[in-house]
Order: sequence, then C-alpha cells, then structure tokens
Amino acid sequence: MKPSIRLGLIALAALALQLSLGTEALAQARPLGSWNDGPAKRAIIDFVRKTTDPSSRDFVPRGERVATFDQDGTLWVEHPMYSQVVYCLDRVPAVVKAKPELAGVEPFKTALSGDREAIAKLPKDDLVKILEATLTGMSVDEFRAEAKKWIETAKHPRWKRRYTELTYVPMQELLRYLRANGYATYIVTGGGQDFVRTYSEEVYGIPPEQVVGTAAGTSYGYDKNGKPFLTKEPKLLLNDNNAGKPEGIHLMIGRRPRGAVGNSTGDQQMLEYTKAGSGARLSMIVLHDDAKREYAYGPAQGLPNTKVGTFTQALYEEAKKQDWIVISMKKDWNRIFSFEPRD
Amino acid sequence: MKPSIRLGLIALAALALQLSLGTEALAQARPLGSWNDGPAKRAIIDFVRKTTDPSSRDFVPRGERVATFDQDGTLWVEHPMYSQVVYCLDRVPAVVKAKPELAGVEPFKTALSGDREAIAKLPKDDLVKILEATLTGMSVDEFRAEAKKWIETAKHPRWKRRYTELTYVPMQELLRYLRANGYATYIVTGGGQDFVRTYSEEVYGIPPEQVVGTAAGTSYGYDKNGKPFLTKEPKLLLNDNNAGKPEGIHLMIGRRPRGAVGNSTGDQQMLEYTKAGSGARLSMIVLHDDAKREYAYGPAQGLPNTKVGTFTQALYEEAKKQDWIVISMKKDWNRIFSFEPRD
Repeated sequence: MKPSIRLGLIALAALALQLSLGTEALAQARPLGSWNDGPAKRAIIDFVRKTTDPSSRDFVPRGERVATFDQDGTLWVEHPMYSQVVYCLDRVPAVVKAKPELAGVEPFKTALSGDREAIAKLPKDDLVKILEATLTGMSVDEFRAEAKKWIETAKHPRWKRRYTELTYVPMQELLRYLRANGYATYIVTGGGQDFVRTYSEEVYGIPPEQVVGTAAGTSYGYDKNGKPFLTKEPKLLLNDNNAGKPEGIHLMIGRRPRGAVGNSTGDQQMLEYTKAGSGARLSMIVLHDDAKREYAYGPAQGLPNTKVGTFTQALYEEAKKQDWIVISMKKDWNRIFSFEPRD
Repeated sequence: MKPSIRLGLIALAALALQLSLGTEALAQARPLGSWNDGPAKRAIIDFVRKTTDPSSRDFVPRGERVATFDQDGTLWVEHPMYSQVVYCLDRVPAVVKAKPELAGVEPFKTALSGDREAIAKLPKDDLVKILEATLTGMSVDEFRAEAKKWIETAKHPRWKRRYTELTYVPMQELLRYLRANGYATYIVTGGGQDFVRTYSEEVYGIPPEQVVGTAAGTSYGYDKNGKPFLTKEPKLLLNDNNAGKPEGIHLMIGRRPRGAVGNSTGDQQMLEYTKAGSGARLSMIVLHDDAKREYAYGPAQGLPNTKVGTFTQALYEEAKKQDWIVISMKKDWNRIFSFEPRD
C-alpha cells in the first residue's frame, strides 16, 4: 500500500471513530459531574490537561501515567470500622468452630460476644491475633471464595447496603476520567491486598495486578493429588501504611506516581513521595467534613477525633504547605453515593 | 446520533483501520518466523487460537490473559555467568574505593583479583556478601543510574556485544505475538527486580510494573533538603526462584498465568502452577542444546552439567509427564540472535 493511501485511510478511520464515539466524547467533555466547580475539580482538570497535551512541557508519555488511590475513606466509607476488620470479626465463629479450644480464649471470647463496645476497645495486639486467625492458614482459593461470599452479602450498619455500594461517586468519576486519559489507576491500601483484590475489578474496574496492599507471604505446596496450591502464611511482607506506601509502590509498580489521593495520616508519605517527583504532580487528600451525608472526622479543622482514618491538623497544615489539594466532601461533592436521590 | 448511523460509522472505522493496518496484519498472519514448524510452534499457535477465539470453550477474556517468562536462559543468554552477577563483580572496585577497609577482606579480595576461576569458585555465602554490598545501601535512583550505565556499555565475553543484544529473536517474536493477541507479558526472574526493570522496557517492551523478580525491601527517608527518597536495604522480601516464583506471581500479579516459559529447575514450580490451572494452559521449557550457535548444558539428555541454569534429566521427565513443551534451541529455532547473518 502506498504511504499516502495508508495515511488517508488512517485519517478516515480516525474521523469515523470520532463520529461514532460522539456520545462518549460528549460525556468526556463534561467529566466529573459530581464535583462542584472549585479548586479541587479545577486542579484535576488542569493536571490532566498538562500531562496529556503533547505540546505541554509537563507532558507525560502514556505508559508513565500512574495514579494511586488509597481505598478506605478515599474510595469508599471507612466508618465506623474498616470493612475488612468487620469481615475478620464476622469470620471468628467459623474459626472457633474449626478450633473449639479458642472459644474461651481472648480475644476470641470478646469477638464472639458480639459486644461492639468491648470489641472496639480490644488492644492492637489482640486485633492482630484475630486478623491472623481469619486471614491466614487457608489456601488462597479458599480465602478468595470466603471473602467474595461475605462482600456479596454483608451490609453496612447505617445504610443497610452492601459495602460495595458505599463507594464515592466523585471518586468513581475521577478513576474513569483518569483512565480515559491514559492513566493506570492503582489502589494502594493499608487493607489486605488479597482481600481488596476479590472485589476491586467489579467495584472500581481495577484489576488484581493493580492493587497494592498490606501483604503477607504465601507458601507453595501440593495437595494429596499432587496438585500445587498456595497457602496464606502469617508472615508480613509489606505493611502498606505510612512509609510502607511508597515502599510498596516501588516494590509493586516500580514508578513514582504522577497523582495520588488519600485521606489520612497513613497516606502522608505516598502524597509527599508523589509530589516530590519532577514535572506536574497531583496530591489530593479527602477531608470528611459532612456528617449529614457521610461522616465528619479529623481532628483537623476542629472536626471530631477518630482512630479510624485520622486526619490531624498537622497533616492539614502539611497539605497546605506542600500544595496538596484538600477535597472537602461537603463543598466539593454535589453527590456522594449513587443511591442518593438526585435533586 | 441514530444507533443505525452510529453502527455504520463504527463498521466504516473498523474497515478503514483494517486496510490502513494492512502491513501489520500481514506480519501477524505469519508470526513466529524464527520458529521452525514443529510441535513447539504448533503448540503456541494452538494455545493462542483456543484462548482468544470467543467461540472456543477455552476462551479467556482479555484482562485474564497473562503469560510469564523467566529471563536468564529463557529470554537471553545466561552463560557463562548471569549478567547481574557480572554487574556486581564489576561494581566491587567502586565499593572498595568508598570503603577501602574491604580491599584486604574476602570475598572482596578475590573479586578484585580479576581471577575468574577463583571468583567462580566462591562459596554461595561469599557471593551473597558481594551482592549485598553492590545492590543495597544506595538510593533507588542512584542504583538505577549505575545499572543503566553498566548495561549500556558492558559486553559479553564471547560475542563482544552488549548483553541487551543477546536476547533470543524467537522469544522476542513470542512476546510480541502474545501481546498482539491481548496477553500481558510479565518477566518472572530469579534476578533482581530493580536490576531487570532498568532495561526491560527498552529490551523487551515490558514495563517495570510487569517485572517480578527477587526483591529486597527499601526504606523511606528524607535528604537534607527534606526531599523524600527510597534506600535499598539488605532485607530479602522475595526470593523469586523455585517455589518463590508462584509465590511472587501471587504477590505481584494476583492471577495464575495462562502461559509460562522457563529453562531450568528454578522455573519448575512456575510451570507446574501454570499448568495446574483450569482450561488451556501452556508451559514451555527451553533446552540449551546448541553449543555452536549458543551453549549446550543440561545435564538433561546427556548434555554437559552446569551450575548456571541447571536442567536435570528428572526435570526433563517431569516436563514430558506434565505435558510441557520442551523447546530445543537447535531444532525449534532457525535463528537465535538478531545479529546472525540470514541465510
């Protein structure tokens, strides 16, 4: 084929595709519909424009476009308790059934009691014992099946809806907007990597290989028929919180993100690390300041204190100093959940 | 836009694209040109057809198409010594310059002597000391710069060519063929993850996030200007050999591969694990039986024994039993290197 004919056909293809994709293009032209016009939305659109426009000095080639998102409190609700902790507590009866000697032993005794107040007061070491007993010791496939079953049925105490319905619409829009602009979107969560991978693709369109999380080792072995399988071991490889986030990003992705979004002190290092790279970088942090539609906690900006997703005033000052974008749920989002009635 | 017009435009776009991409389509129609017609080539083409044809009962959706490749001895030359070990030995003078007290201490003394025979005889513990001293203790960025500089200049003793020229053309074709058919191609190497990531994209078209390798931890810290950086630590997180390969695949990819290629005992578990999955799976193992064009070692099939890339007769029997495809470099490949004169 002559080069001129070939080029002509490519142009024709491009034009036809453009016309045929008219509807999508229109949606693209008005992205982030659940975001109010304001500094956060403007920062996102400006960042994407600068990094994807080939004539911009901040242009980033497609393969290098990486954005990382914390999950709990950033992509979905984390109050009153991280969903994975609820999963682990819900699994205690099954663990005790398999090992009846645990019934009278702490912290399993308290976990079995159903006394939410006593459970909330369990010291960290006791919580770790519950996590170990419910997240390790089984095969990777068994764990996946159990976690999947739970996530398909368990409901949040306030909305009586499945946890997977409690994702923030503006964040789902942001994920889609970034992907439509050539960004690979990763979850970088303090939660369990295997746990989040069971639903991330369905819930966020993020495949397992793009989920970085707290990870324990596995061990390779064979069943009685000689078939190989992996067992989840109580050996921590990566604590994907605080400094563990940039360390995990290096281990699993091997590139510094161009954009990162978090909501608590556990995300500080990821946001710093992202922002410290050269060229245009976007670091954002969600402030939960909407008790009516979701929750209000900080204690930044005089919001109530919390142990789940702490956002201190010092972190707030750091965000301002380092030019991160603080997202106010109250002011920046005109819609939080997909089940909210539209005005 | 009316749906009928839209569909028509999509069809037109598809047609125009097809015509404009005529040349590429032709190349695709005759893939794997450096592979002789034989059981290996037929197995590859059959596997790809079955897993990509939507009407096949072995069809695999696009996102689940994962293929994993060992590197040393599978994608490029590993004899007489793994390139990364050569890198570490080449780095010893710089390490000793920074720490002169090491000059008289073993194994650095032997490494400095340049006596290749004595170096080859160093016990494993001594080798580990050299790897630690040359692969850890510096920032991730410093390491990347050093490794990149080396890989751009160091030459293989036999061909006097850069290591990156010593990739196997049939394997490069296989990588491209799989990618053209929607497969994500990963390197799963016993070599250092950070080391291989410095050149994998340029050499194989495989980006850093698709390189799984032996990995040590990093630690997050700040320089004197408060800028964050990661330091490579002598703390092994993943020994990506033997059982470590399926364990590493679970950690980093979270999916069982559909296809896997290796060449030594260190790849056995990855090949088993891949083949043990449901549906069509392809496990392949390269036999180095071509001393003239490359190297001959096993000791399978009466080939000379080796410590670098051992392929035992027991592994050969296992391959036959488990229906892995043994690739004979001599019989299956009509071309090995891109610099070979064509017939």
